[in-house]
Amino acid sequence: MHPFDAATTLEARPDGSFLGATHAAYGNFIGPYGVITAAQCLTAVLQHPQRLGDPISFTINFAAALADGAFTVHPRPARTNRSTQHWTIEMRQGDEIVATATVLTAVRRPTWGTHELRMPEAPRPHDVPRTTRRGVAWLERYDMRFLLGVLPRTWEGQGSDDSTSRLWVRDDPPRPLDFASLAALCDVFFPRIWLRRARQTPLGTVTMTVYFHASADQLAAAGSGYLLAQARGQGFAGGYFDHTGQAWSEGGELLATTHQVMYYKE
Amino acid sequence: MHPFDAATTLEARPDGSFLGATHAAYGNFIGPYGVITAAQCLTAVLQHPQRLGDPISFTINFAAALADGAFTVHPRPARTNRSTQHWTIEMRQGDEIVATATVLTAVRRPTWGTHELRMPEAPRPHDVPRTTRRGVAWLERYDMRFLLGVLPRTWEGQGSDDSTSRLWVRDDPPRPLDFASLAALCDVFFPRIWLRRARQTPLGTVTMTVYFHASADQLAAAGSGYLLAQARGQGFAGGYFDHTGQAWSEGGELLATTHQVMYYKE
Repeated sequence: MHPFDAATTLEARPDGSFLGATHAAYGNFIGPYGVITAAQCLTAVLQHPQRLGDPISFTINFAAALADGAFTVHPRPARTNRSTQHWTIEMRQGDEIVATATVLTAVRRPTWGTHELRMPEAPRPHDVPRTTRRGVAWLERYDMRFLLGVLPRTWEGQGSDDSTSRLWVRDDPPRPLDFASLAALCDVFFPRIWLRRARQTPLGTVTMTVYFHASADQLAAAGSGYLLAQARGQGFAGGYFDHTGQAWSEGGELLATTHQVMYYKE
Repeated sequence: MHPFDAATTLEARPDGSFLGATHAAYGNFIGPYGVITAAQCLTAVLQHPQRLGDPISFTINFAAALADGAFTVHPRPARTNRSTQHWTIEMRQGDEIVATATVLTAVRRPTWGTHELRMPEAPRPHDVPRTTRRGVAWLERYDMRFLLGVLPRTWEGQGSDDSTSRLWVRDDPPRPLDFASLAALCDVFFPRIWLRRARQTPLGTVTMTVYFHASADQLAAAGSGYLLAQARGQGFAGGYFDHTGQAWSEGGELLATTHQVMYYKE
C-alpha cells in the first residue's frame, strides 16, 4: 500500500466520525507534517456516506500541534442544497480539538471555462534534476524539482526581495492524483519567509485554503504525473505572513489554487 | 448611527450566541449582500467576551441565501492557546444554517515584516471620478473609483483576457476602518467572470477568505481614507471560479489579502 493511502486510512465509526492515526512516513521534526493532516481531514468528507459531489473549496485551521498517535475526525454536513453541500470538520486527539476545517462539495456541471492563470514556461520535469532535501520523513514522500526559489544556500540573512518558488512535484513513490493528495501537494511549500530572510525562526502553518478547479476526471487524467506548483508571499507583519499559490498539471491545466498563513516568531 | 454599525449591531444572548437582523441599507437584488453577512459573522467573534487578540484569518462559507429578517450567530472558541484562538461560527435563520465560518484570532507581537506585494502606482483617490453604480442598496454604501477593470459597457459577449479590477473604495458615508468593515470591503468586487465574458449569468459567492495583515492600530491610522483594492480571477471551470485580491491603505500599507470562489450557472 502507498504510504499516502496508509496514512489516510480511516475507520468509520457508528456516530459518523472516523478513527485514524498519524503515520511515520509523513513525520516532521515533531509529530506529523501538515500535508497529511489536511489530507486526513478532507478524506473523512470524501469517505462520508452522505457526501454530495466533489470538493470545490477546503479550508483547514491548524489549532494545535498533533501528537503522534490516534485521532478522530468529525465531519458534519451543515447544509445540503440541491447540488452543493457545506461541511464542517473537527479533528480531535482525546478531548482536544487539534484542527477545524470547512469543505464545500458540489456536483459540477459543464459550463464555459478558462484558466486565466497560465502555467509558466518551464522545462519538462525529467529535464530538471531532483532537488535533494533530507532531514525529516515527509520530504522523502515528494519528488521535488525546483525551477525557482530553492532553499537558501546559506542562512546568513542574505534574503531576496521575491519569495516566489516554482517546482515540479509529485508523490514519491508516484501515485495517481486525487483530491486528497492534491490538497496535500498544496502544502509542500517551505516557508516563504526563508527566502526573504535566509534565517530560521520557529514557525508553522495556522490556516490553509485550497480551491479545486479540476473534476475527478481531470485528476484521473493527470495520473501520476508531476504538478507545476508555485507560491509567493504577499504580506509579512506582526508574526504572521501569507502566501498565494497555484498548481498545474503537466499538461498545463490549472488544477488548484491555494493560500495559507504561517505564524513566525520574530 | 452609520448604516454599517446599525447593520452589525448584535444582541448577546445568555447561551453565547448573538441575535441580529438583515438591514435594508445593504440589500442586494434579493436579501442582503454578502459583504454584510461576512461582517456580521466576524462581529460576533469580535464582541465575544472570551475573544483573545485580533483577527488573523477569516473564512466564511455562504451556505444558503439569507432571507430578510432576523438571524442568530453562534461563535465558539474551538481551541484557545497561549496567544492564538480558533473559532468556529454558524449563522442560522430558524433551524437552518445559512453560513459557516472559521476565524483565527491572535495576540500579535512585534516582528520583522515587509509588504512583498507593493501597492500599484495610482492617481490619488480625489483625482479619480467616482464610478456611478446604481440598482441595489448596498452599492450606495461604497464610494468606488475604478482605475482598471470597470464593468463592461455593453453585455454583448466581448470579454477581456484579463479579469483584473483595481479601484479606490471606502464606506459611504465615510467611516473609520475596523476589522469588520475591512472584511466587508474585501467582498465588494463584482464577479470576475463579467469581465471575461461580458454576459450575465446567475452567480453568487460560495466561500471567501480574508487574511488580515494589519493591527488594530494600523486600521485606526487608515481612518476613513480610501483603500486601493484589486482582484483577479485565476481559474474558471465547471460552474465555479476563484479570484485573489489585495487591499492597501492610502498610505500604501497592505492591510488584507483575500480570496473567494463564486458559483456560476453556465
